[in-house]
Amino acid sequence: MQAFSVSEIGAALDAEVVGDTDLKITGAAEPADAGPSDLALAMDPKYADGLAKGAARVAALWEGADWQALGLQAAILVGRPRVGMAGLTALLDPGPYIAPGIDPRAAIDPSAEIGPGAAIGPFTVIGPGVRIGAGARIAHQVSVAEGSEIGADALLHPGCRIGRNVKIGDRFIGQPGATIGADGFSFVTPEKSRAEAARETLGEVEGVKAAQPWTRIHSLGSVIIGDDVEIGCNACVDAGTIRPTRIGNGCKIDNQVHVAHNCEVGKDCLFAGQVGIAGSVKIGNNVILGGQVGVVDNIFIGDGVVAGGGTVILSNAPAGRVLLGYPAVKMETHVETYKALRRLPRLAAQVAQLQKAVPKPGGND
Amino acid sequence: MQAFSVSEIGAALDAEVVGDTDLKITGAAEPADAGPSDLALAMDPKYADGLAKGAARVAALWEGADWQALGLQAAILVGRPRVGMAGLTALLDPGPYIAPGIDPRAAIDPSAEIGPGAAIGPFTVIGPGVRIGAGARIAHQVSVAEGSEIGADALLHPGCRIGRNVKIGDRFIGQPGATIGADGFSFVTPEKSRAEAARETLGEVEGVKAAQPWTRIHSLGSVIIGDDVEIGCNACVDAGTIRPTRIGNGCKIDNQVHVAHNCEVGKDCLFAGQVGIAGSVKIGNNVILGGQVGVVDNIFIGDGVVAGGGTVILSNAPAGRVLLGYPAVKMETHVETYKALRRLPRLAAQVAQLQKAVPKPGGND
Amino acid sequence: MQAFSVSEIGAALDAEVVGDTDLKITGAAEPADAGPSDLALAMDPKYADGLAKGAARVAALWEGADWQALGLQAAILVGRPRVGMAGLTALLDPGPYIAPGIDPRAAIDPSAEIGPGAAIGPFTVIGPGVRIGAGARIAHQVSVAEGSEIGADALLHPGCRIGRNVKIGDRFIGQPGATIGADGFSFVTPEKSRAEAARETLGEVEGVKAAQPWTRIHSLGSVIIGDDVEIGCNACVDAGTIRPTRIGNGCKIDNQVHVAHNCEVGKDCLFAGQVGIAGSVKIGNNVILGGQVGVVDNIFIGDGVVAGGGTVILSNAPAGRVLLGYPAVKMETHVETYKALRRLPRLAAQVAQLQKAVPKPGGND
Repeated sequence: MQAFSVSEIGAALDAEVVGDTDLKITGAAEPADAGPSDLALAMDPKYADGLAKGAARVAALWEGADWQALGLQAAILVGRPRVGMAGLTALLDPGPYIAPGIDPRAAIDPSAEIGPGAAIGPFTVIGPGVRIGAGARIAHQVSVAEGSEIGADALLHPGCRIGRNVKIGDRFIGQPGATIGADGFSFVTPEKSRAEAARETLGEVEGVKAAQPWTRIHSLGSVIIGDDVEIGCNACVDAGTIRPTRIGNGCKIDNQVHVAHNCEVGKDCLFAGQVGIAGSVKIGNNVILGGQVGVVDNIFIGDGVVAGGGTVILSNAPAGRVLLGYPAVKMETHVETYKALRRLPRLAAQVAQLQKAVPKPGGND
Repeated sequence: MQAFSVSEIGAALDAEVVGDTDLKITGAAEPADAGPSDLALAMDPKYADGLAKGAARVAALWEGADWQALGLQAAILVGRPRVGMAGLTALLDPGPYIAPGIDPRAAIDPSAEIGPGAAIGPFTVIGPGVRIGAGARIAHQVSVAEGSEIGADALLHPGCRIGRNVKIGDRFIGQPGATIGADGFSFVTPEKSRAEAARETLGEVEGVKAAQPWTRIHSLGSVIIGDDVEIGCNACVDAGTIRPTRIGNGCKIDNQVHVAHNCEVGKDCLFAGQVGIAGSVKIGNNVILGGQVGVVDNIFIGDGVVAGGGTVILSNAPAGRVLLGYPAVKMETHVETYKALRRLPRLAAQVAQLQKAVPKPGGND
Repeated sequence: MQAFSVSEIGAALDAEVVGDTDLKITGAAEPADAGPSDLALAMDPKYADGLAKGAARVAALWEGADWQALGLQAAILVGRPRVGMAGLTALLDPGPYIAPGIDPRAAIDPSAEIGPGAAIGPFTVIGPGVRIGAGARIAHQVSVAEGSEIGADALLHPGCRIGRNVKIGDRFIGQPGATIGADGFSFVTPEKSRAEAARETLGEVEGVKAAQPWTRIHSLGSVIIGDDVEIGCNACVDAGTIRPTRIGNGCKIDNQVHVAHNCEVGKDCLFAGQVGIAGSVKIGNNVILGGQVGVVDNIFIGDGVVAGGGTVILSNAPAGRVLLGYPAVKMETHVETYKALRRLPRLAAQVAQLQKAVPKPGGND
């Protein structure tokens, strides 16, 4: 691994450096695991104890830390620790190994345009009319289908699959198995289905024919993705039916997330692992969905909504709302309801007690 | 894209056409986005306003629409809009680009039988004894393992993986990463496990040994899938242990759905994204499971059951039942219970009030 | 398929054999489906009826069964049926077809070390510095990235992807699409995000800036996996940030499970399909998580915890706890609360009745 001096790291992190700033480190480690060429990460006082167990000479510490008392030869003083981590890990990450140039074992359609400096690995397939931006790093076993465009400096990991006519901005990261632009899941029965009826009536489906086959609605709309988007392992963003499914600039989507056809997601949203968003949902900017959150189809989620892990959102969520529960309610309502629920068996006992104490009004129970 | 006349589209949709039916369109668009060679989709009066914003000359409209007043030169009048969409999108979809014939970079075992007219893309692996039906389109990076049979006119997208000895009917669609016939997840401990004990006793596991290793039960049963089935991106249907896992004719299974070993699914079922069905579940015909629905192992779900998104089904569901909630109850019961739950903090306050008003019966609280 | 005598099977299962123990069987089947060369599986008296419908001459039966009265020529008498299934299916499973040796169409970096007897299929990519153990079976379309080590007798199915610097023990099984060591999902905003604020305050985010972009924290920590681990289809175990994500010996992880960065999982845990575990969770030994269980980040789950399907664990779980519900509570508490919830509408009616019977104390309602 490349070596960096303390002063280089400080400059990259825009952080104060103290001590022997010419010392070089080649990696980062937790304090107790750190060797003499590692930068120990102890950006909170609670991690300071570990320094004595390890062999670090340099540490990233909190602002105002007494680095000399901790036995260090140099230190980097970081304000917001996770921001420091971002800069530091970006600096130390050599990136995945993708050999420069185009591997002769890739199958690239002659009509595809590959930008300058792009690398493409073996067994990758690039379809007709595809345009790959400058500096893109496309690993092995990747697929980019006909008519798609991927911006500059993309990083597509092994097994990432881009469907037809998808447009993706710059600096896209697609993790292994991430699939963008597969067919939406859209089927129709000849007559009204029991699912449609159940939604309209909240459960009443009497007289609605169950035994009907499904006819496929094809997906012609593809996907449009902005700049600086990352899509996780085995996650899926399906193609729209007529209009494109849209993911705005700066969105970060974790492993195994499912974004269905026709959804429109604003910018800088963050969806944690296994989130599932049904079709035609409109999501604003800066929306944060915790792990396993579900969103029913055809609703909207306003700007800045935050939903805790496992929340199931069954109706529109106004901007700024913080949600929890199934079905989703305001987090504070959920907490209050949940407390009441825990006391419910006791409440039932109290009511039984009251019933004994209160004479019944003349047998009309 | 191919051009279609208004009358050709009308014939394909079995719909009434009016105006200049020789006009040709080459695509479909939402009304406001439509150009002069697009068919604008405005099959409900609420979409009519958009027509003035776009440049469409032809639209798909609702039955009885006054197409001339909307400034159109021709129109297609559609009864049930989503049925119209199915016909229309099927007509306009050119299908994925898969070059005809067998790519020399595919690895095809000499004992495999490839039907007439089938296409196979680069880096696809077809194992010993496999039989591929006539007209199948098998994209690149696909895997079909030893002994499997796939019917006529199949469409396997990149990265679709079929395990050993799987039998699949005609017109199958496998989306990217869909995996059929991987090993079931079946393990056993030497003595009764705590999971087994917890189920029997609803939570009491006192005295049951926790520290036991897991021994694997291998999957010999493979999977049998009927005709006209579609399996979504990164979805899995696991092999059975002794008997096959079965998926009936006409089933549609969305992205990231998991169907475990030994399940038997009837015909024309529809499972939305991220549904998870544990082992040995028996599911009838025309069952509709919303997104993220979970089904515990070894139960049955009767014909025509509908479960709303996020429902967790922990016990048998009789035919025709409409379910919601965790654990699943009848949708109307869930709605009623949920309303009561929202009023629970108020109810607790009312009980506290009553306790103050009612004298306690002699200290025996 | 290979043929086995009744005595050979008995020896492999360490079970008593009776009758003509030289009879040979070539497969296993359910009693009613069994042909004359199949071993019928009827290890519980409830399956005995099926024997008359099939043509089996030999069956696996429960201990003490009267095999002659069931019309059999031989029998294998098994104590714990699922343990018998494990031995039997292991014996009868020929394993996946992977041709011996290294396929010339694999892309293997010259610096990789491949152990003796290892097989590698076509279109598989093995990166620089990789070490593959003796006897490993690596199918086609697999990826093992730079610096990773995989122990002896591994079985990597098609499309299994191992990231950089991952260390895996012996006898590992990776199902199709299983992805180990992809980047963790870790992002930070310049100032405190609304998600951070909502957690601290249980919902209050007034004054916290919503519109902030996300900066990536890179994953330098990779993954360390013990011996005898199996990871299911399209499941993901992400790389740690600084320290490795860890999975202990003997863990079994089902399809579509997500284990996020920095998690530490003990030994002999079992996670069923679609379990999602957020970052930095510490999990003990022998933990059993049912299907679709969710675990919030930065908590611990003690040894021997069992969580039923769909449970969402939002706080630390002490050793031995049996959990159910969202949020998770002790299973018996959940059952009690749930019963009370079902009676809640009736309770509300009782309170209304009491309110009518009890005079209000002077208008101070």
